[in-house]
Amino acid sequence: MKTATIVGAGLVGSLWAVYLSKAGYKVTIVERRPDIRKAEISAGKSINLALSTRGWKALDTVGVGDEIRKIAIPMLGRMMHDLQGNLTFQPYGKEGQAIYSVSRGGVNAKMMDIAERNGNTQIFYNEKCIDIDLENGIVYTETKTGEKKQHQSDVVFAADGAFSAVRYNGMQKLDRFNYSQNYIEDGYREILLPANADGSYKLEKNALHIWPRGRFMLIALPNEDGSFTCTLFMPFKGKNSFETLTTKAAVNTFFKTTFPDFYAMMPNIADAWEDHPLSSLAIIRCYPWTYGKTALMGDAAHATVPFYGQGMNCGFEDCSVMWDLMQKHNENWKKVFEEYQIMRKPDGDGVQDLSLHNYHVMRDYVADPKFLLQKKIEAHFSEKHLDKWMPLYSQVTFSHIRYSEAWKKGQIQDAIMKKVMAEIDNIEDKWNSQEVESAILKELE
Amino acid sequence: MKTATIVGAGLVGSLWAVYLSKAGYKVTIVERRPDIRKAEISAGKSINLALSTRGWKALDTVGVGDEIRKIAIPMLGRMMHDLQGNLTFQPYGKEGQAIYSVSRGGVNAKMMDIAERNGNTQIFYNEKCIDIDLENGIVYTETKTGEKKQHQSDVVFAADGAFSAVRYNGMQKLDRFNYSQNYIEDGYREILLPANADGSYKLEKNALHIWPRGRFMLIALPNEDGSFTCTLFMPFKGKNSFETLTTKAAVNTFFKTTFPDFYAMMPNIADAWEDHPLSSLAIIRCYPWTYGKTALMGDAAHATVPFYGQGMNCGFEDCSVMWDLMQKHNENWKKVFEEYQIMRKPDGDGVQDLSLHNYHVMRDYVADPKFLLQKKIEAHFSEKHLDKWMPLYSQVTFSHIRYSEAWKKGQIQDAIMKKVMAEIDNIEDKWNSQEVESAILKELE
Repeated sequence: MKTATIVGAGLVGSLWAVYLSKAGYKVTIVERRPDIRKAEISAGKSINLALSTRGWKALDTVGVGDEIRKIAIPMLGRMMHDLQGNLTFQPYGKEGQAIYSVSRGGVNAKMMDIAERNGNTQIFYNEKCIDIDLENGIVYTETKTGEKKQHQSDVVFAADGAFSAVRYNGMQKLDRFNYSQNYIEDGYREILLPANADGSYKLEKNALHIWPRGRFMLIALPNEDGSFTCTLFMPFKGKNSFETLTTKAAVNTFFKTTFPDFYAMMPNIADAWEDHPLSSLAIIRCYPWTYGKTALMGDAAHATVPFYGQGMNCGFEDCSVMWDLMQKHNENWKKVFEEYQIMRKPDGDGVQDLSLHNYHVMRDYVADPKFLLQKKIEAHFSEKHLDKWMPLYSQVTFSHIRYSEAWKKGQIQDAIMKKVMAEIDNIEDKWNSQEVESAILKELE
Repeated sequence: MKTATIVGAGLVGSLWAVYLSKAGYKVTIVERRPDIRKAEISAGKSINLALSTRGWKALDTVGVGDEIRKIAIPMLGRMMHDLQGNLTFQPYGKEGQAIYSVSRGGVNAKMMDIAERNGNTQIFYNEKCIDIDLENGIVYTETKTGEKKQHQSDVVFAADGAFSAVRYNGMQKLDRFNYSQNYIEDGYREILLPANADGSYKLEKNALHIWPRGRFMLIALPNEDGSFTCTLFMPFKGKNSFETLTTKAAVNTFFKTTFPDFYAMMPNIADAWEDHPLSSLAIIRCYPWTYGKTALMGDAAHATVPFYGQGMNCGFEDCSVMWDLMQKHNENWKKVFEEYQIMRKPDGDGVQDLSLHNYHVMRDYVADPKFLLQKKIEAHFSEKHLDKWMPLYSQVTFSHIRYSEAWKKGQIQDAIMKKVMAEIDNIEDKWNSQEVESAILKELE
C-alpha cells in the first residue's frame, strides 16, 4: 500500500490527509499537541479565520466544503467604527460575495473526523518530530513519555507551521538553503467579546468589524455562539503601544478614549486583558521547499502576517496545487515535488507581499480620503469593465488568479490610478465621469 | 579584574582580544578549532584577503599594523586577462593607493601572538560553544574529549563567524529575532598557482589578477612565497557551471579554452582541481546584534559575499566602532551595546548591499564598454572635483565613510551618470569635455 507521513495535524495537515487518503494512501499524522477535540483550544491561537474562494475550492475538491459551510458565518463587508461610534459599511465584493468566519478549532476538528472516518488515516498525538531523514522519508519522533519512534513512508509532508520542526531539523541543515524570518513592529492580543445574555450578537453578525486608528487597529470576527473574537494589532514599542498598556488603569483609559463604542459593550476589558498572550508576527520565507521524499506545505513553507486573511486559504491552495500535480505526473513524486516548488514558490512570495502591503494599507491608508477615493473610482470602473479591471482585493479573495499574478496586476493598477488621479484636477468631483473612465482606459492600452 | 569572553579566535576575535587586553580586561577566548599556529590551515578557507584602509586603521589603533605590514603585499590595481592573454591594468586609486594581500592564517597567527603576549589573554582551543546565557554572560562549552565547561564574564563577544554558535544557541531562540541567510547562485573553488622553480612569481606580483568571463571569473592574489591563491567563481548549475566540471577532461578543456594564459602556467590544473572543496556563498543578516551581556561582531553579525573585499575590513571596523563607544560611554556596556547595534547595523547592511552590487558589476558589467566609459568619466571628473565626487570604490576601500553612506552616495552618483550619458550624444568622443563636466556639475546641485 502507498504510504505517506504528515507532520502536523493542523488545518493544512488534516485537509491534506483527506486528499491523500482519498488517493488510496495509508496516512500517518504526527502531531506534537494533544487531540484538539479532547483538549481546550490552545490559548492565544487566533481562533477564527476568514475562509474565502481559494479555501472553499480546496475543501470542495474533496467534498468537505459542505460540512464546513455548516459552521461558517458569512461576512459581507467591513464595518468601520470611527471614534464617535459611527458605522460605515464597505462591501467586500459584488452582491452575494462574502468571506466566511470560521473557528480554527471547529474546522480542524471536523477535518480530523473526516480524515479518520476514511479508515486509512491514523493520527498520533503528543508526538514531536525531533529529526528527519529527508531523502529516505523517515520522521523521527519523541512522545510525551520520552519514547522514541520513527515513521518511514513513501512521501513526507511537513504541515507543521511557521516554526516547522521538519524544516528546522531537515532543510535548515542543508547547504545553500535560503531562509529568512522577519518580524513586523506590531504584535497582537486577542480579546473575547461575549454574546448578550440572551445569546444574541452585540454587533452586526455578518461583517468583519474594524476600528482603524492609524498606527493601530482593533478587529472583530463573529463566532457561532454570539460572541466575537477581537484582535488588537499595535506596535510593541513607542507611543500607543503594548508597552504602554501594562496596568488596568492604562488599558481602561486607552479603550475608553480610542474605542468608546467597544468599551461601552465591554467595560470589564481591563480584567480580560491578559486572558490571551501578547504575540508577535513574522514573514518566513525559505527555499527549496522540497528535498528527497519530503515537502513543506502551508506556513512551514510561507508563513505570512494575517492582514489579507489569506494564510489558511493559501495553505489550502497548496493542497489544490499539489493534488493537480499528483494527477498530472501520475504520482511520480520526484516530478511532483520539482514542479510544485518551482511553480508555487512565487505564489508563496506573492501572498506574503500582498499581506505586507495590506498591513501598510490598513495601518497608513485605510482612513486616507485619497485612498478611499481611489478605491471608489476603481470599484466603479471595474463594474463597467470587469473584463479589464478586477480590484486587487477581489483577485486575491474571490478568484483563483495566482497570488504572484494578482500582486503584479495590483501594482500596475495602482500605478495607473496614481497617474490618473494626479493628472485630472478636482477628480473627487467627477470620480464617476466619462473623463476619468477614458483616462483609465487609455492607460490600460 | 574586568573580564571578557570572546567566542572565536579568528581574525576579528583575536584582534578584539588585543583591544580588550589593552583596556585592562582579562580575556578568555574559546575556539572550536585547534591552534592555527600548530595545525595546517583549514582546507578550503579563503587563505588570502585584501586589507584596505578601514582594516589598517583598526590594526594601527592598537599598534599592530606594522607587524602585519611585514607580511602584506600591496596590490596597486586590477590586472585584467582577456581571452587572448592580453593584459590591461586598472589602478585602484590615486598614485600610492593600494589594497594589500595578506594570508588569513598569517594575520591570525600574528594577532594571537600579540594577544597572548600581553599576558592577560588565554585561548582555549578545541572548545566548542554549545550554549549561551546571553543575559548573564555565560558561555557553555564542550571540549574535544567531551568535557563540559562554562565561562562567565562581564561581557561576551561572539566573533564566531557566519554560522555563529552564539547566535544560533542564543539570539536565534529569542522572540522577534530577525534573521536571513541567502545564498547566491555562484560557488567558488580555490586553486593554488605555485611559484616558479626559483621562487619567483608567475604573474605580476603587485596586482590583483582577474580573468573576467561574463557569468564567471577567476581571480588571483599574491602570496609571500611567490605563489598565487586563485579563486574560480561560477554558478553551481547551468552552462559553464561547476556541475559541468566533474571530470579531468572537462576541467582541462574548460581552462584551455577560457583561461588559456592561466592554463599555460598550470597545465596540471585538472590534478589540482579537487585540492580544495567547492564552497557556497551567502549573505547573512540579523537583528538585534546584542542582548544582555552579549554582542555579535564580524561575520556573526553581517556575513557577506567576498566581491568587494570588505568582509575582514568590516569586521575590523566593528572593533574600531566598539572601541570608540567603549571610550564614549566609559565602558557602560549596556549603553555601548545599545548604540553599537543601532549605529552599526545600517553599515552591516551597507557592506552587504555593496558586496552584492559588486557581484553583479563583476558578473555583468566589468567588460561592458558603457560601464567602462562611465568609470572613466567618473575618474576624470573626480580628479578635478575631489571635494564633490569620490568614486564609490574609493569611498569603500580608501576612506572611512560609513558603508551605508557610501552605498547611498554611490547610487546617487550612478543615477547622475546614467542621466548624463543618456542625454549627451556621442559622449564616448567627448568624455573629458567641458560639456560633460558641466552636465555633471549641474546634476550635483
